[in-house]
Amino acid sequence: MIQQKMPRVTIWNEYRTERERDDVRKVYPDGMHQPIADYLEARHLPTRIATFDDPEHGLSQDVLDQTDVLIWWGYTVHEEVEDEIVNRVHQRVLQGMGLIALHSTHYSKIFRRLMGTSCSLNWRDIGEKERLWVVAPGHPIAEGLGEYFEIPHVEMYGEPFDIPPPDELVFVSWFSGGDIFRSGCCYYRGRGKVFYFRPGDQVYPIYYQDEVLRVIYNAVCWAAPETIQRIPSYERLQPFEAIEDYWATNHADDR
Amino acid sequence: MIQQKMPRVTIWNEYRTERERDDVRKVYPDGMHQPIADYLEARHLPTRIATFDDPEHGLSQDVLDQTDVLIWWGYTVHEEVEDEIVNRVHQRVLQGMGLIALHSTHYSKIFRRLMGTSCSLNWRDIGEKERLWVVAPGHPIAEGLGEYFEIPHVEMYGEPFDIPPPDELVFVSWFSGGDIFRSGCCYYRGRGKVFYFRPGDQVYPIYYQDEVLRVIYNAVCWAAPETIQRIPSYERLQPFEAIEDYWATNHADDR
Amino acid sequence: MIQQKMPRVTIWNEYRTERERDDVRKVYPDGMHQPIADYLEARHLPTRIATFDDPEHGLSQDVLDQTDVLIWWGYTVHEEVEDEIVNRVHQRVLQGMGLIALHSTHYSKIFRRLMGTSCSLNWRDIGEKERLWVVAPGHPIAEGLGEYFEIPHVEMYGEPFDIPPPDELVFVSWFSGGDIFRSGCCYYRGRGKVFYFRPGDQVYPIYYQDEVLRVIYNAVCWAAPETIQRIPSYERLQPFEAIEDYWATNHADDR
Amino acid sequence: MIQQKMPRVTIWNEYRTERERDDVRKVYPDGMHQPIADYLEARHLPTRIATFDDPEHGLSQDVLDQTDVLIWWGYTVHEEVEDEIVNRVHQRVLQGMGLIALHSTHYSKIFRRLMGTSCSLNWRDIGEKERLWVVAPGHPIAEGLGEYFEIPHVEMYGEPFDIPPPDELVFVSWFSGGDIFRSGCCYYRGRGKVFYFRPGDQVYPIYYQDEVLRVIYNAVCWAAPETIQRIPSYERLQPFEAIEDYWATNHADDR
Repeated sequence: MIQQKMPRVTIWNEYRTERERDDVRKVYPDGMHQPIADYLEARHLPTRIATFDDPEHGLSQDVLDQTDVLIWWGYTVHEEVEDEIVNRVHQRVLQGMGLIALHSTHYSKIFRRLMGTSCSLNWRDIGEKERLWVVAPGHPIAEGLGEYFEIPHVEMYGEPFDIPPPDELVFVSWFSGGDIFRSGCCYYRGRGKVFYFRPGDQVYPIYYQDEVLRVIYNAVCWAAPETIQRIPSYERLQPFEAIEDYWATNHADDR
Repeated sequence: MIQQKMPRVTIWNEYRTERERDDVRKVYPDGMHQPIADYLEARHLPTRIATFDDPEHGLSQDVLDQTDVLIWWGYTVHEEVEDEIVNRVHQRVLQGMGLIALHSTHYSKIFRRLMGTSCSLNWRDIGEKERLWVVAPGHPIAEGLGEYFEIPHVEMYGEPFDIPPPDELVFVSWFSGGDIFRSGCCYYRGRGKVFYFRPGDQVYPIYYQDEVLRVIYNAVCWAAPETIQRIPSYERLQPFEAIEDYWATNHADDR
Repeated sequence: MIQQKMPRVTIWNEYRTERERDDVRKVYPDGMHQPIADYLEARHLPTRIATFDDPEHGLSQDVLDQTDVLIWWGYTVHEEVEDEIVNRVHQRVLQGMGLIALHSTHYSKIFRRLMGTSCSLNWRDIGEKERLWVVAPGHPIAEGLGEYFEIPHVEMYGEPFDIPPPDELVFVSWFSGGDIFRSGCCYYRGRGKVFYFRPGDQVYPIYYQDEVLRVIYNAVCWAAPETIQRIPSYERLQPFEAIEDYWATNHADDR
Repeated sequence: MIQQKMPRVTIWNEYRTERERDDVRKVYPDGMHQPIADYLEARHLPTRIATFDDPEHGLSQDVLDQTDVLIWWGYTVHEEVEDEIVNRVHQRVLQGMGLIALHSTHYSKIFRRLMGTSCSLNWRDIGEKERLWVVAPGHPIAEGLGEYFEIPHVEMYGEPFDIPPPDELVFVSWFSGGDIFRSGCCYYRGRGKVFYFRPGDQVYPIYYQDEVLRVIYNAVCWAAPETIQRIPSYERLQPFEAIEDYWATNHADDR
């Protein structure tokens, strides 16, 4: 609301299908990350790009240390992402970095690690219509939207979506084919905030649509940490109050 | 409330310190699992024991297939529990098996896997007093308890406890030393229910105390699944409604 | 799961339209409450009926004292329900009585009192199809259902539904007309449990449909209190621990 | 995080005890609202004061229309606050205005209206110590605090606190006397956000303590709406999709 501090964003994109498939290149010639980066930059959010094929997948400790919110889009190479990098991102989230998981990222190692469930869902790709309904009208991630917005042609994701109950549920999607989906889900994990947002897929121009970009921008603002801090460690404490040590008093010899 | 079906319980106990340390053997000559098993058996719950040193840690697929609720107590050998067994238990929880994680189990592989966080906490062992307050008075896990109950001498676990916000918070503990702790936490994971319960530790006769046993019994009843089912798989669906296939109609050639 | 205690159910039905309108009488000749009562009685739940036109709306203190779960269906006379009776039901819920609010009951005094919001929603009545999706597969209220069930012709209720975020969200509805709705919502209020269930309306034979009746039955089992207890009162407590009285010691004269 | 818009704050203070009791006047010569207003003004939040004895309790529609976040402190005159004003504030909250309820405000008409429960609690006033533990370390309301902070002398509020389960629980208090309390509770109601914060009471200089003021400031930032909007009304909708009108087609004569 008030502070001036601008969250530093890193967009991680697998960036494979855009280079390998004509139908995808046609839609996202510069990669799916580009229209998102353009939108955020236009709103003064310093944004950097990292991709799967960069060294360390573009996510060195140094990059993460300078990232307040990480946006992630993955699809075909989930299992090839190195565990060391996943651990690094996981630690950073627990320390306070926001994570925005887009679309097929539901099956990424990092999202499943944070959820603790299978993250499975049902799907169909016949380009049907999606109508996203706002079910948390006061939520900052819904700011600037009406009661709903539509995406004309999408790949459908349907329930059951095997995730923990969202700490805050912001969007539920209606699909022409007869399905619904919890398509905007907030989670608190450690000091970090995680937002899963369903819309996407490489063959649709969804990341050019204003409402979709607005949600991603709102989510970055919501997920941005005030401060990045250490994960609480496993510490032995002295008592705050002056109380007896039962062991010292009664069982010194047992120990 | 109504059904007759008795949940089949398996108590997994690391069962090391009771055999290795005199001070522990003195308190739990037959193992920490025994007073719990006695209490559940007396209430007609068929209960089996599994320990770390059994083949497959006592948790063969066959045993899990016959387990509705798994109670887990681990402390010194967390990291030695085989990943294959952890995966097996994880799958079973997502399919509907209840899991009751006791005390130091907060750091077990299975609990951390289900939480997605570090599960770290602060601690102190000077035998101070714990007073567990019921903050969800209508919750089935609090059934038969008053507004609070006390344990005269405990090892303290204190906040910050790095867990996801509980889906239902049942108990919060007060400690003489000046700490508090979310000591009774419910989670829904897949089709399974998970309950973390703080009291315990091998050198205190806590698992003989009636309120503690009552909570474990209540938690078994709460976590017991109606039915164990498959994890929702990643399925491609046909539409429920008769709608156009956008691709077939407009872009058959793109695919 | 285990106990034998059978919750005592009272079904409160406004019971006006069934007597006033031919189209409704045709569907529910004995009142909407009858098929529900038959279903519960067949499962050994002692069930009594109370209606708006009974003395005290059929909800004397004596009746409430013998009610573990109250099912409520109201539509045309919400504002005519006497505040004294609403207060009485409210107190009983806070003491532990379960409340199942059906369909148009979203606008009843008692439901709005318990929610604290306007409980407004959008609606349409052209007999479209509703498909209720289970989004909490492990929840006892979803027991015995598949991943979804359908009602062929319904009055539509759509988002925005102005309710607090449900403590547990069990069902989300899809409607042919393009809307979605949080149609199965659990709340904890005081010691009582509240479940809102959307399906209904007097001109459709919905309360004869097996899945709908099963949900109501499951909800009764979920909402049934273990014990009905007093509302925590506003009590002045003596300290549990031997500590100094700051006032007595330092400022006796100030008081 | 990013926007410049400054939330307009109104502090409603009963403002009776400060004028009636010497021991209170000694602590808050200009009223309890003054140190809070000073702190917020120093952080550039335009802050206005309203008190019980002002016309319309200082809460005319015009004042509310210019209020983004309302801070409320009441104690002795809860029942004398006019229902018309309570309704007005309630509507404004549902439209998006934030509400911060301090200390004894737990028993105010507006807070109980929004909670739907009795809001009862236990209490004791011997000036014991309170230690507030942060249990949601990543939450914006905990920004700038450590793992806990202490208040040397307070009136104790203890569990059971008869409130709905908080949508987000930020603080839990430890008291020397042996009690705990959920002392920082977030709720979403309509489009508005509500935060209950326990510390306070007229005879202690608590509203001069930096951590307490920081929490109130953080809560104002969290509760401030992006936009104030109408409460969703009860609207009849046309279908979004071209579907059959079952009644028009099959039962035109029934209607």
